This record gives sequence, C-alpha cells and structure tokens, in this order.
Amino acid sequence: MQTPSHIRVDHIAIVVKALDHAIPFYSQALGLQLERVEDLPAEGVKIAFLLAGDSGVELLEPTVPDTGVARFLGKRGEGLHHICMEVEDIQAVLDRLAAAGAELIGTPQQHPDGTLYAFIHPKSAHGVLLELYQKP
Amino acid sequence: MQTPSHIRVDHIAIVVKALDHAIPFYSQALGLQLERVEDLPAEGVKIAFLLAGDSGVELLEPTVPDTGVARFLGKRGEGLHHICMEVEDIQAVLDRLAAAGAELIGTPQQHPDGTLYAFIHPKSAHGVLLELYQKP
Repeated sequence: MQTPSHIRVDHIAIVVKALDHAIPFYSQALGLQLERVEDLPAEGVKIAFLLAGDSGVELLEPTVPDTGVARFLGKRGEGLHHICMEVEDIQAVLDRLAAAGAELIGTPQQHPDGTLYAFIHPKSAHGVLLELYQKP
Repeated sequence: MQTPSHIRVDHIAIVVKALDHAIPFYSQALGLQLERVEDLPAEGVKIAFLLAGDSGVELLEPTVPDTGVARFLGKRGEGLHHICMEVEDIQAVLDRLAAAGAELIGTPQQHPDGTLYAFIHPKSAHGVLLELYQKP
C-alpha cells in the first residue's frame, strides 16, 4: 500500500499561448532552470520543462486546434492546467481513488521512457485535473 | 542574484468548498500526509496543509463571502488557485520580475513566523497567480 512519504509533486503544468514569451518569464525573470523544450506533433503540443527544486514546471503550448489543451486555452485562457504527482504504485493509488468514488480518465498509459501515467477527472478531484506518474 | 537552483515549489493551493470533503480525498485516497489544519478568521479561510515530497498542497476553504478566495469559488468553482515558489532573496526576484514587466500585487508582507511573501498578478504571469516566499 502506498504510504504518504512516497508521493511527490513531479510537475505543475501551465497552458500558455506561446513558449517564446512564457519561457523567458519563467526562466530569466522568475529564475527557474530550463531543462528541455520538445515539439510533440502527435500530441499537438510543444512543451518546455523547467526545474523547481524537487519538482518542475511544464509549459504547454497547443500547436493544433483539436486537443484538450487547445480547448482549455480557447475557453479559459492561459493558466494552471494540471498537477502531476509521482507515486510508487500507480495501480494501488488508482484503486484507492476509484474506491473513494474518483473518476479515472481512461486507463494508465505508458510514455516511451517506461513511465506509467493516468489522469483523474477534475470533477472528482475538487476541480483539479490530477495526473499520476509511476516511473520505471 | 538569485540562481535557478535556489527556487523550489513550496505549495500548490487549491480552493475547495469544504475541507471536510477535500481532506479525505487528498489524504486517505490520494495518499498525501496531512500536516495541519488552521482556521484563520482574520483572512476568512480555513486551510489544510498536506505534504507532497519537498512541496505541499494547501487546501483553502473560504469562511466569509468577501475575500478573493470566496469570489474565486463563486465564479470558477473548486480548483487550482495559486502556486508558491520559495526563493532565497524575494526582493531580487521581485525586482527582476518588475523589470520584465510583471505586475506585483502590493508589496511584500510578513507572516508571523517571519516568512516574507508577495503575489504576482496572473495577467503578467501567463494566467498563474504566483506567490513568492522568503523564509527566515
């Protein structure tokens, strides 16, 4: 069973209109260290990842109109999109959340690096789109 | 001058309708460790602080109608409210942000424990209400 000490904030995701404007704000002005910028055409986003202590900030710029991120930007404007918690045993946490009535968005998927991830619907997480990671 | 390595996510703040419902979700179901619950009548909120690795989650329940937190809940519903970054030299970071055109909300204030804090307006931080901490 997952214990509290094994959960950490992996990243905070922020939807922005243009990485070209947001990266200088969060890196040079605020002072976070830019780790990487990636173009993910299959997902319709460009992302920038900045380091913040044990966690990070992920800036998301939509590059095509028909994604959740693009719709979020169109409807709500720039702002906080989701938070991602790293856990040790994602299935155990998902089982506990489901038992507590939380609605999962699909089933856990896998990134190319082997990280398992899953999303909890905001309506069952007090308005927060919650992502979980289990790293290999 | 502030260097990137001296910034960390102190907490992620989430506005909720009722701590009584949100605390069990974030502690027992998700697995975060509940650190403390405080009633702050002067600020019109009750807060719960939960530990998440090097960072934390702050749940905010408005207790009076005329605060920013209460208006946020009425207008947008439950959800992500702000993120707080701890820095070493808050004035240096505020000066850099101001030089980059960011709008500060007032001037730095002090918590009873000596922590200095300040807020950056979301319109100048890509839609994110950004809090800064400098701990004593």
